[in-house]
Amino acid sequence: MKEILFSKIDNYYDEMVEIRRYLHQHPELSFQEIQTAHYIKSYYEKLGIEVRGNVGGNGVVAKIYGTKPGKTIALRADFDALPIQEENDVSYKSLVPGVMHACGHDGHTATLLVLAKILHEMRESLSGTFVMIHQHAEEYAPGGALAMVEDGCLEGVEVIYGTHLWATVPTGTVQYRPGAFMAAADRFEVTIQGKGGHGAQPHNTKDAIVAASQLVINLQQIVSRRVKPVDPAVVSVGSFVAENAFNVIADKVKLVGTARTFTEESRDLIEAELEKVIKGTCYANDCTYDYTFFRGYPAVWNHPAETELLMESAAKVAEVTNVEEAEPDMAGEDFAYYLKHVKGSFFFTGACPEGITTPYPHHHPKFNINESAMLIAAKTLGMIALDSVAE
Amino acid sequence: MKEILFSKIDNYYDEMVEIRRYLHQHPELSFQEIQTAHYIKSYYEKLGIEVRGNVGGNGVVAKIYGTKPGKTIALRADFDALPIQEENDVSYKSLVPGVMHACGHDGHTATLLVLAKILHEMRESLSGTFVMIHQHAEEYAPGGALAMVEDGCLEGVEVIYGTHLWATVPTGTVQYRPGAFMAAADRFEVTIQGKGGHGAQPHNTKDAIVAASQLVINLQQIVSRRVKPVDPAVVSVGSFVAENAFNVIADKVKLVGTARTFTEESRDLIEAELEKVIKGTCYANDCTYDYTFFRGYPAVWNHPAETELLMESAAKVAEVTNVEEAEPDMAGEDFAYYLKHVKGSFFFTGACPEGITTPYPHHHPKFNINESAMLIAAKTLGMIALDSVAE
Amino acid sequence: MKEILFSKIDNYYDEMVEIRRYLHQHPELSFQEIQTAHYIKSYYEKLGIEVRGNVGGNGVVAKIYGTKPGKTIALRADFDALPIQEENDVSYKSLVPGVMHACGHDGHTATLLVLAKILHEMRESLSGTFVMIHQHAEEYAPGGALAMVEDGCLEGVEVIYGTHLWATVPTGTVQYRPGAFMAAADRFEVTIQGKGGHGAQPHNTKDAIVAASQLVINLQQIVSRRVKPVDPAVVSVGSFVAENAFNVIADKVKLVGTARTFTEESRDLIEAELEKVIKGTCYANDCTYDYTFFRGYPAVWNHPAETELLMESAAKVAEVTNVEEAEPDMAGEDFAYYLKHVKGSFFFTGACPEGITTPYPHHHPKFNINESAMLIAAKTLGMIALDSVAE
Amino acid sequence: MKEILFSKIDNYYDEMVEIRRYLHQHPELSFQEIQTAHYIKSYYEKLGIEVRGNVGGNGVVAKIYGTKPGKTIALRADFDALPIQEENDVSYKSLVPGVMHACGHDGHTATLLVLAKILHEMRESLSGTFVMIHQHAEEYAPGGALAMVEDGCLEGVEVIYGTHLWATVPTGTVQYRPGAFMAAADRFEVTIQGKGGHGAQPHNTKDAIVAASQLVINLQQIVSRRVKPVDPAVVSVGSFVAENAFNVIADKVKLVGTARTFTEESRDLIEAELEKVIKGTCYANDCTYDYTFFRGYPAVWNHPAETELLMESAAKVAEVTNVEEAEPDMAGEDFAYYLKHVKGSFFFTGACPEGITTPYPHHHPKFNINESAMLIAAKTLGMIALDSVAE
Repeated sequence: MKEILFSKIDNYYDEMVEIRRYLHQHPELSFQEIQTAHYIKSYYEKLGIEVRGNVGGNGVVAKIYGTKPGKTIALRADFDALPIQEENDVSYKSLVPGVMHACGHDGHTATLLVLAKILHEMRESLSGTFVMIHQHAEEYAPGGALAMVEDGCLEGVEVIYGTHLWATVPTGTVQYRPGAFMAAADRFEVTIQGKGGHGAQPHNTKDAIVAASQLVINLQQIVSRRVKPVDPAVVSVGSFVAENAFNVIADKVKLVGTARTFTEESRDLIEAELEKVIKGTCYANDCTYDYTFFRGYPAVWNHPAETELLMESAAKVAEVTNVEEAEPDMAGEDFAYYLKHVKGSFFFTGACPEGITTPYPHHHPKFNINESAMLIAAKTLGMIALDSVAE
Repeated sequence: MKEILFSKIDNYYDEMVEIRRYLHQHPELSFQEIQTAHYIKSYYEKLGIEVRGNVGGNGVVAKIYGTKPGKTIALRADFDALPIQEENDVSYKSLVPGVMHACGHDGHTATLLVLAKILHEMRESLSGTFVMIHQHAEEYAPGGALAMVEDGCLEGVEVIYGTHLWATVPTGTVQYRPGAFMAAADRFEVTIQGKGGHGAQPHNTKDAIVAASQLVINLQQIVSRRVKPVDPAVVSVGSFVAENAFNVIADKVKLVGTARTFTEESRDLIEAELEKVIKGTCYANDCTYDYTFFRGYPAVWNHPAETELLMESAAKVAEVTNVEEAEPDMAGEDFAYYLKHVKGSFFFTGACPEGITTPYPHHHPKFNINESAMLIAAKTLGMIALDSVAE
Repeated sequence: MKEILFSKIDNYYDEMVEIRRYLHQHPELSFQEIQTAHYIKSYYEKLGIEVRGNVGGNGVVAKIYGTKPGKTIALRADFDALPIQEENDVSYKSLVPGVMHACGHDGHTATLLVLAKILHEMRESLSGTFVMIHQHAEEYAPGGALAMVEDGCLEGVEVIYGTHLWATVPTGTVQYRPGAFMAAADRFEVTIQGKGGHGAQPHNTKDAIVAASQLVINLQQIVSRRVKPVDPAVVSVGSFVAENAFNVIADKVKLVGTARTFTEESRDLIEAELEKVIKGTCYANDCTYDYTFFRGYPAVWNHPAETELLMESAAKVAEVTNVEEAEPDMAGEDFAYYLKHVKGSFFFTGACPEGITTPYPHHHPKFNINESAMLIAAKTLGMIALDSVAE
Repeated sequence: MKEILFSKIDNYYDEMVEIRRYLHQHPELSFQEIQTAHYIKSYYEKLGIEVRGNVGGNGVVAKIYGTKPGKTIALRADFDALPIQEENDVSYKSLVPGVMHACGHDGHTATLLVLAKILHEMRESLSGTFVMIHQHAEEYAPGGALAMVEDGCLEGVEVIYGTHLWATVPTGTVQYRPGAFMAAADRFEVTIQGKGGHGAQPHNTKDAIVAASQLVINLQQIVSRRVKPVDPAVVSVGSFVAENAFNVIADKVKLVGTARTFTEESRDLIEAELEKVIKGTCYANDCTYDYTFFRGYPAVWNHPAETELLMESAAKVAEVTNVEEAEPDMAGEDFAYYLKHVKGSFFFTGACPEGITTPYPHHHPKFNINESAMLIAAKTLGMIALDSVAE
């Protein structure tokens, strides 16, 4: 079975590249992926595969039924692009000004479509059911995953897998990580309200810039003193705005930032400690505040047994020369939501372009992937699918 | 002589009010006072008084010669307005949207014009020479005073006086202060250059917001630790801008602020200490910086003997019920430049509107003066003029 | 009268030096000045002058009655020494190890004793009453002045003067200052209570050193932002103690400091703002605190008319070559208490040793005065006395 | 073989308890363990086992030779006590005032002595060689391990294991961790030299307390901004001393603290970043500094294959009901040095006293272990030994 699967993937590799390049030329922003969703749905329809569109928004879900009894496994690929102007000089460069597949989602989609076609072709000899989840809007909170789950995309699903083509990891390497893998990505906003006035008369004011500066400094101790040292966490203030003339004292400062954690405990702790530091600092400065902590994607927590299965399945792919444990990654991923409902695992498929030692990072205008990594991703996901349903 | 002067001022009071209200309705911003300058120059020309326009810009200088020998005294009034939308509900409300005489310069000008007319009428019986300096652009650095001095407005002048109608001091009170009276008003700009990045990866960045926040906090000690406690000084950061998405780390922060001092020693100290704190803080944060300290108006330093003369002259005015020493004021005034060249004194003429206990401060959309304070200012300046040339 | 006074002072100058040197050799600490008080009292008793000992502690008060009617004036000299080991190499070096007249109180006492003797000799031709207040314990709060006042030393007194021999001002100069002259000197103590623990487990602790460090930094803004810039003020933390092993997190920090101000308004403000900053900082750090603000001597506030009289009297002394306004001084002086009850003025008599340009400051082991400054002090105080009672 | 081993351990359990209690009553501080070393050496001598004393100080090394060829495995137990006054009310309470086995090293030693006796008895049927390393001075840097290694205790050794009885982990649980397990524990000392002076005259000083407070605050960002979030690290200032009178400004502050890391990269980074922050902060404050970073024990890094072997061996012990991965622990352990020279693994043997849910932590005056955990430790170490030599 494995041999048939791998051989078919080899044979369809050109189509995978073709699809990926087409999508790369026609990127669409999160929540606006009308054409891409249509493209995906049509692909399935032409093959006669059961498919449902508008799942939780622009999501598309296809189902392939093996003829023998077995588990139901879902595979997920996201398909939205980013508001970035591509700077690559390639034949398949984005045709949409200011929009680019700068995170590899084009590759994810091509991989999954072709893998689905192959599983469909092999369905007579397969056990179980294969659910292809094409997810919109991974890049922009609240994301598409939660809405797709709420719209039933996981109905009947017993296990789910997904991969991210990862340009900063060598092609040929597959990175797994049981437990905490990608961070919860939350946002916070703080407005410090002081009392403005003339720059020469501080005693008649409450200097909001001084209060907010103390706040930024004091927030550093949330990570350095309050969070358990072995629980990775980040609190960053990314925006600090109080734009005024030189000779005034600011009445107001707007701060916006992000918190990253791997456990709900750390998340709750940071939300509470932020308020504690804000409240105390404002009290000391006679200022008032508005504080909101917006929960973004939760942490991606990979189930251990399912992660072990993926390690074993990946090892069966000849092109995978290295299966290694990844470090936790502070970035966020709404694949997290699926793993809250069913078991599964999310992993990285190395996709560093050939001959490159310092690849451009994801979200960079010159980001690109090694297209042959799609072949590896397809074989690994395919192998996982076969191994999962067979269990 | 005193009686004639005071009686003439009483008689011309209505004209003073009329002029002030006309100017109030036609305010012009600093360095754009074309019509106002024209108005002033015409006033003198119609009276046959020697007058020179375009002095150091829009400045106007008139000269009245007494027939007897005596000293040459200058009196100064400024005539620019502010970018403020008037909110007073008066018959003579500003006709120029967004521009307002919200600091009383209209009153200064009316006072000086009418006083000049009177001195001109009395010239046969007067000693000395009277130089009327109508200065543009007091509100906006580098101001008009310096340019007028450079253009010769003080030629031959032996002593100079000026007053500010001061709405927060009761009408009837004259406030003097020998020595340091109004502060040097300097501006500084600092750009902190760090290294931006993803909010989840602080270790790959140099967080400019953290560095700048430390800077703001550390700058507090310039006043609290470095400046001699009995030398009043202020260092305020009025603007702090690093506007970014929530999930980035800022690569750059722009800070703008003001420093206020009364001595050149403190001024030099603050300029140097600012750089010391900036440099050390940036070193600790692996950031670089651009720092510029722009010297604004120097401190107004009133000459003691000339201040004593004004105290005595003011006491001769019946409407002046109180002559008192003012506290130093952290605001700036480019009258300071005249006092660097000739002896003299600058003082406040109380102008709190009748029946008001908490008057609107200068530069407020509802700022107004008690017009009868112009009468007091005219009498006090006139008396000073007669007393000075007589010495 | 002036001539007789001055001539007598010249004649008794040697005795003044002798007394001063005797006292210098026999210094006694604040509140322990038994022998010095005895010496002073005996001096008066031998002369048959009315004298009362044990006034408010070790204080001594003598009274000399002129034969003509007139005002009652008090003159004050303090007589305690400091816990300093003298390092001067002089014939009259302190004989008491670790105790030294390092502030010139020996000179004050010698001056007043001899002046009293002379006024007593001149009593037949004098108006008014002269109260000689020899005060113990000026150097150590709560000081001797308050207790002496409470014990009646000012009974019947209408005006009071005192001077300090001031080694950092040239001999021949007398420095006066109407209004605020010397600062209120308060003390504060703060204990920050966190939760100790292992240095490797910050998340299980509340780091009191971090909280206290934030507090020290945040306190800087009391002077830089909260106090009116033209009201001189100082807030200094002089002691910060949390002594622990390297690998623990401190559970407690003890801070001690001083606040200096010239107005009761600033004093109240600082006491309240300290608590505000402490409370807010502790809240942000989950710590608790104990805070006490101990009021020391109030500010010395010289009455204007009495200060003017002293300026005039001083100008009559030939050896006084310069009468000038002093800057406010942030040091404290319990002469302040007398001025809360009766009018008067406190001033500096320049006492810089001959030939010295950078004299050792007060409280230095090598501090010394120019003894001839006692002659000037005696003549100035004597002149003030005669001028005051004559009014 | 396993059965014989386990049965012998069961039989000798009473002796183990007896030895542990004897040692508990006779604790000796690090580097002063003369009697304990003598006790251990005598134990081996009485059994006729090859033993060497004074190894790298008070260390003792015994060797047991199996009769069949095989690998050479070392087992290590430390035997020093702590400067803590025991507060347990037990029959075997410490007889030495102020010294206590508050970390379980008494149990480690008893376990290893009895296990050695058993292996000696079984030697005819065993392969390989067993090196019993009894190490002094684990509690106090630079520790005993490095000196023992330098004195040859690892000669011929191919693999090493050690365990710590861990009172906060349930008895029956064995905790392993491949890779980084316990942190590098470094110490740093910083002296900030400012310029002292009077508390009322900050402008004449360089306030060392303000500089040091800024330093403490700024150091927080080393962990929050500079270290990679997924690399656990701690920087704690444990001691901050500037003890002065209330009315002075401190000339000097002494800071002492600890840094904890798991990688040499983080360690180097923290050492360098500390200096960067110190240097910049001192520059901004016109202070100078002395800074020393003392490297303590490196991180304990367990070799993966050897850790896997211990997991398997532990699982063979009936009393071990749970073998689980430990979190990294920020405490230090000089077992790290052995692992720099030979392969091996260090693990925790749960030793929570029976019926207790919140056991007293290590180094607490009421710390105690569940003695039956020694039985588990002996069986696990014995099983590992047999499994290792057999490989």
